[in-house]
Amino acid sequence: MNNIITLNHGSGGKVTHDLISNLFVKHFNNKYLSASTDSSIIDCEEGQMAFTSDGYVVDPIFFPGGDIGKLAVCGTVNDLAVSGATPKYLSSSFILEEGFSINDLETIVKSMAEEAKKAGVSIITGDTKVVPKGKCDKIFITTSGVGFIKPKFMAIGEGSKVKSGNKLIINGTLGDHAIAILSSRESLSFETPVKSDCASLNHMIKKVMDVCPEVAFMRDATRGGLATVVCELASKTGYGITLYENKIPINDSVMAICELFGFDPLFQANEGKVLMVVPDEEADKVIAVLKSDKLGINAVIVGEVTGEKTGKVILETITGGKRLIDMPAGAQLPRIC
Amino acid sequence: MNNIITLNHGSGGKVTHDLISNLFVKHFNNKYLSASTDSSIIDCEEGQMAFTSDGYVVDPIFFPGGDIGKLAVCGTVNDLAVSGATPKYLSSSFILEEGFSINDLETIVKSMAEEAKKAGVSIITGDTKVVPKGKCDKIFITTSGVGFIKPKFMAIGEGSKVKSGNKLIINGTLGDHAIAILSSRESLSFETPVKSDCASLNHMIKKVMDVCPEVAFMRDATRGGLATVVCELASKTGYGITLYENKIPINDSVMAICELFGFDPLFQANEGKVLMVVPDEEADKVIAVLKSDKLGINAVIVGEVTGEKTGKVILETITGGKRLIDMPAGAQLPRIC
Repeated sequence: MNNIITLNHGSGGKVTHDLISNLFVKHFNNKYLSASTDSSIIDCEEGQMAFTSDGYVVDPIFFPGGDIGKLAVCGTVNDLAVSGATPKYLSSSFILEEGFSINDLETIVKSMAEEAKKAGVSIITGDTKVVPKGKCDKIFITTSGVGFIKPKFMAIGEGSKVKSGNKLIINGTLGDHAIAILSSRESLSFETPVKSDCASLNHMIKKVMDVCPEVAFMRDATRGGLATVVCELASKTGYGITLYENKIPINDSVMAICELFGFDPLFQANEGKVLMVVPDEEADKVIAVLKSDKLGINAVIVGEVTGEKTGKVILETITGGKRLIDMPAGAQLPRIC
Repeated sequence: MNNIITLNHGSGGKVTHDLISNLFVKHFNNKYLSASTDSSIIDCEEGQMAFTSDGYVVDPIFFPGGDIGKLAVCGTVNDLAVSGATPKYLSSSFILEEGFSINDLETIVKSMAEEAKKAGVSIITGDTKVVPKGKCDKIFITTSGVGFIKPKFMAIGEGSKVKSGNKLIINGTLGDHAIAILSSRESLSFETPVKSDCASLNHMIKKVMDVCPEVAFMRDATRGGLATVVCELASKTGYGITLYENKIPINDSVMAICELFGFDPLFQANEGKVLMVVPDEEADKVIAVLKSDKLGINAVIVGEVTGEKTGKVILETITGGKRLIDMPAGAQLPRIC
C-alpha cells in the first residue's frame, strides 16, 4: 500500500478493493464487512428500530481527547441512545482528499474500531470516495446507525412525556469539546489542559433507563450546546424551562477561555453530554446512577420544567437576575463536529 | 431564506432549523422528518434487513439525465434492491460549501424527493454540515438505506447460489453514465446526445424476483463498470465467466467517444444497469420480464458461467479472439458518482 491516498483508491477497482481489505475489513473486523456485498444483511428484532445519520467534518481531525473517527462513532451511537434505542450497527462513508496520509487514515480507522468495540456496535457497511486535491479538506466521514428500541422507550426522543415539575439533569461539564477544538485550530492554537468530552454514552444511558424507565426526554447537547437543546425542548413542548446558572458545571479552564473570547459556554458544543429530563421524584436516583459511571461523575440537576406554558427558557443567573435564553442564529465556531 | 449557504446554516442553531424546515422537511415530506428527533423510529418487519451507505461526490452536480440528488437516491435504492431487499427508508447527510446556491440546493432536494417517490422510499433522517468556502466542492451527499428482505432472497448479494451454466444478463447499454459525466465536465465539454442512465431499478428488479425467485446473483454495475462486477463475481465464486463482446449493448455515441478517448466501455460506470445471473432455463423468462419494463428494453444475455473453476473472466471478442479481463487498478475518470 502506498503512503498517500490517490484518486485510484476511490475508483472501485483493485486499488479500492485492497484499501477496503487492508484497512476497513481488517480493523472493523466483522462477518458483514468480510462478505463484501452491496448491502449488509442483519437480523431485525421484532418491534421498532431507530435510524440516524450524521456527517463529520471536524477541523482539526486530531484534537485533544479524540479524532474525527472516534467522534463519528460516538456521535451516531449517542443519537441512537438518546432516542431510547440500543445502538447495534453503523455504516461509515469516507470522502477522502487525494494526497491524504494513509497512516493518518489508519489511525482514524483504528480509533473508530476501538470506539465501536467500547460502545458495543459493529461497523458493517460503508463506502470510500476520493476527490482531487483541494476539493475537500483531508477527510469527511458520514456514519449512519441503526438500533432497536423497546416500546416503553419510544417517546423519549420526542418530548411528549415531559411534564411540569420535571427536573433537567446534565451528566457533567459543558463546552469541553468546543474549547478543545478551538485550542487546537492551527490559526489559534494555545495551551490549555481542556480535552474533548467525546464519548459513547449508550452504556451510561442504558443504566439510567434500567432504573428509571420514566425518563421523559433525552438529547445529546452537541452543536449549539445545552442552551439550544433546552430551547428546542421548550419550543416543542410549549412548557417554560428554568435553568440555574449556579448549578451548571463548567471547567475553570473552559470558563477562562470563554471569557477571553466572549463565548457563552451554554451554547458551546459537547460530544459526551446528555440532557435528561426526569420526574422530580426520580431525579436523585438518576443522579446517583449517573455518578456511578465515569462519564457522569459530575452529574447535576441544572433546571426544571415550570408550570407555565410559555415555551421560553429563563436562566436564573448567579447574581440573582433572570435572563431569557434564545436559540442562537448561528454558531460561534464552524466545523466543530 | 438568503440565496446562498452560509456557515450559520451548519451551526445547529436557528438558521439550521429554518433550512431543515423550509427545505428538507418540506420536500421530503414525511412524519418521521417532521418529528425532528435525533433518530427516526420505524417499524421493523420480522426477519432480515439490508443496510447500506454510499457517498456521492459527482462532478458536475447537474448532468444530462440527472443530478447529484437523483443519483444519491438511485444509487442507494439500487444497492438495497440488488441485495434482494425491498428498499424502504433512506437517510441523507449533506456536506455543503459556504457560498453554495440555495436555489441549486432546492433543485437537488426536489430531485431527491421526486426520485424517492418514484422508488417508493422515504427519506426520514439526515444531517447538514457546512464547511468554509474552498474546503469542499459545492455539495457532497451521503445516503444510507434500509430495506427488508425475504429469506429466499438472502443470498442474492453474496454469489453463493451461482452455478456453472448460469447466464449473465444486463438490462441495457453500458457506459452511458460515465460518458454523460465526461461530456459535461467544464474542462472537456463537448456535444453528445448521451444521457446518464441514472435510475432506481428496484421496481424492475422486483418483477424479476417475482417470476424468477431462483435468480442467483445481482449487482449494479457502477464504478468500474460491468467488467469489474464480473471480475469480482468470478473471484468470489471461483468460477470462470465468459462474456460475449458481440452481445454487449453499447450506444453508438458512447462507443464513438470511448474510441476517441481510448476508453473500454466495459469498465465505464453505469447508474441504471444491473447484472443478473440466472439459471439457464430461466434466462428467456427473465429477459422477457426485463424487456417489459422501460428500464430493461435492451436487456440481453451477455455471458455465462463456465464449468471450469478458473476464477477468470474471458471476453470472446467480435473478431473471434479471446481476451482475459482483469479488474482495473484505478478509474479512468474520478468523481463519476
